[in-house]
Amino acid sequence: MTTSGTVIIAGAGSGEIDLLTIKTLNAIKTADCILYDRLVNEDMLKFAKPTAELVYMGKKSSGCSDLQATINQTMVDKAQEGKSVLRLKGGDPFVFGRGYEEVEFLHAHNISYELIPGISSLLAAPMAAGIPLTHRDWASSFHTFTGHGAQSELDYTTIAKLAGTLVFFMSIGNLEIICSNLIANGKKQTTPVAIIENGTLPNQRVVCGTLETIVALKNEAKIQPPALLVIGDVTTYAKLVTN
Amino acid sequence: MTTSGTVIIAGAGSGEIDLLTIKTLNAIKTADCILYDRLVNEDMLKFAKPTAELVYMGKKSSGCSDLQATINQTMVDKAQEGKSVLRLKGGDPFVFGRGYEEVEFLHAHNISYELIPGISSLLAAPMAAGIPLTHRDWASSFHTFTGHGAQSELDYTTIAKLAGTLVFFMSIGNLEIICSNLIANGKKQTTPVAIIENGTLPNQRVVCGTLETIVALKNEAKIQPPALLVIGDVTTYAKLVTN
Repeated sequence: MTTSGTVIIAGAGSGEIDLLTIKTLNAIKTADCILYDRLVNEDMLKFAKPTAELVYMGKKSSGCSDLQATINQTMVDKAQEGKSVLRLKGGDPFVFGRGYEEVEFLHAHNISYELIPGISSLLAAPMAAGIPLTHRDWASSFHTFTGHGAQSELDYTTIAKLAGTLVFFMSIGNLEIICSNLIANGKKQTTPVAIIENGTLPNQRVVCGTLETIVALKNEAKIQPPALLVIGDVTTYAKLVTN
Repeated sequence: MTTSGTVIIAGAGSGEIDLLTIKTLNAIKTADCILYDRLVNEDMLKFAKPTAELVYMGKKSSGCSDLQATINQTMVDKAQEGKSVLRLKGGDPFVFGRGYEEVEFLHAHNISYELIPGISSLLAAPMAAGIPLTHRDWASSFHTFTGHGAQSELDYTTIAKLAGTLVFFMSIGNLEIICSNLIANGKKQTTPVAIIENGTLPNQRVVCGTLETIVALKNEAKIQPPALLVIGDVTTYAKLVTN
């Protein structure tokens, strides 16, 4: 009987290689098998052992309707073969990453696991655009949402009242509805907004406007996912970037 | 005339050395002068050059009433001596770190700078306690506040209505008022709560309770700063931790 290997679930961060943590870099170097996501920078895989099995988990397998179920089962299968498995996820595993579903599946199958955080684009992308999430004079809180899926699940009556910085992941498809929901519930049309496309990567672009103008500006610039939407006074600092 | 050096403002993360990013580690290795905060793990400084000047910025200088002003001026002075300066801050520079005030000061003094994010305890501490910030079934947003200072500045009427995970930094001193404000504004007394003391460090402790019970539990356990307060259903997962 083979002893099960361990699974490490680690965040690969926002994409820039040097923003990997030492711990995740070491996990890449030592894993027998790496299951990596679509948003993971593939250049990070050059640190893997020559013998490491590299498995792209970014699209649905044929005959399987649920990608997350495939990922969960593959982690368990590889670990039960006795391999040390690295589940390498874009961003941070616990920030809209469905990481906890993976934890629960491993737990249910009695596979030991370890968790490593990653530099989420929540932290990295605004900073790369020169935008502080908090500022002594302007924002003493920040609020992180997913723009993906039905926005009817979000309580915009409450969200529009928040004084802090609002950050929406995966929001490009729903940008218009997010902005109009916020305005309809009382946020000023002139509230400053920034969209950061490919934050921290060489092809990063930043578009700045207001809740009223950002949809047109996004369309004009042909902004595509992945992109982070940041709403609040702090986005007016985007221009101070010097690096 | 000396050419000014560059300042790097970098996050040292939550304290665990291996959660440093590659980029910040390289900055530690190459800096001529490192200005470091109270919450930075001093073991990280062993990577510095033998000739590097290591300056602790954790307490007020004599004769100077404002620590932040001292930090700002020291960064500029060292850079103007032509040194490569690393301003090493606990956590992430833009998450309640007053990092942007340092950026503004450098900008005003025409000193070039670079920014590096860090693994904030926002990400690292809940994960180390087994708590996901988001969960498909339980939390589709999270909200980050500082518990330091006058809580009268926070709009608890709105905050108590948020369905997502609430995270308070620097909240131990104000724990009782935070919990009572949330309950007074409609959060259930039975809302699950966790406090993570020294998250990711060997002496990490986690105390779990509810909005009604956590103050007594915190007092009983003699929890001290630094500690992170996490409020919401996701904190009930704290028990699943296996690593």
